[in-house]
Amino acid sequence: MDFRDILKDLVKRVDGAKAAVLMGYDGISIDEYKREGTDIDIQLIGIEYSGIIKEMKRTSEVLEGGDVAEVSVITGNGIVVIRAVSDDYFIMINLDIDGNLGKARYLMKMSVPKLKEQL
Amino acid sequence: MDFRDILKDLVKRVDGAKAAVLMGYDGISIDEYKREGTDIDIQLIGIEYSGIIKEMKRTSEVLEGGDVAEVSVITGNGIVVIRAVSDDYFIMINLDIDGNLGKARYLMKMSVPKLKEQL
Repeated sequence: MDFRDILKDLVKRVDGAKAAVLMGYDGISIDEYKREGTDIDIQLIGIEYSGIIKEMKRTSEVLEGGDVAEVSVITGNGIVVIRAVSDDYFIMINLDIDGNLGKARYLMKMSVPKLKEQL
Repeated sequence: MDFRDILKDLVKRVDGAKAAVLMGYDGISIDEYKREGTDIDIQLIGIEYSGIIKEMKRTSEVLEGGDVAEVSVITGNGIVVIRAVSDDYFIMINLDIDGNLGKARYLMKMSVPKLKEQL
């Protein structure tokens, strides 16, 4: 399974998932997968959130909270879930507002070892 | 029920909850409740996260994602859940790493109308 297959598997298995991306905290993506017919700009969303996650990592350090493992954000019209893969990379998935957040979190966690193997 | 009672109720009912705070996005808190014996600095955590949430609100605006309703962050040694109460205020709860995130999310959502009534 290459990166795209893992991202595709995630998107296909989570109800309401629109797209997923594997990206560096520097905002440069390695790979992405979008569900057919989705016009979401997952790159742009990833870039915007990568800055926030970097800030969170800094905050967690200040607070001695340990590494940031996962972040979920629910906005007025969607859900974003981010999971750290390594010190340099994270995966992000974008769901409809009524998407299955629990399953997304579970499957993302499960996918980390597979992604790590190939980084 | 005043603010503190609502925060206390939240902390008491969620397994693994340590403290909760009602705070403005400007980092100024209205009230807080800490479980007995907890030495967590919920003020400091709230102040640090209020800056991040402000940044998220700005990002969500840029991405036309709508208002930020809820943010969960899982770090190496704890969980932070933040829920917007109004344009100016949010509540934040701090859980142990094995705390009940689902129940925290549910009860925080339920507490928003009660908090709003008094703001």
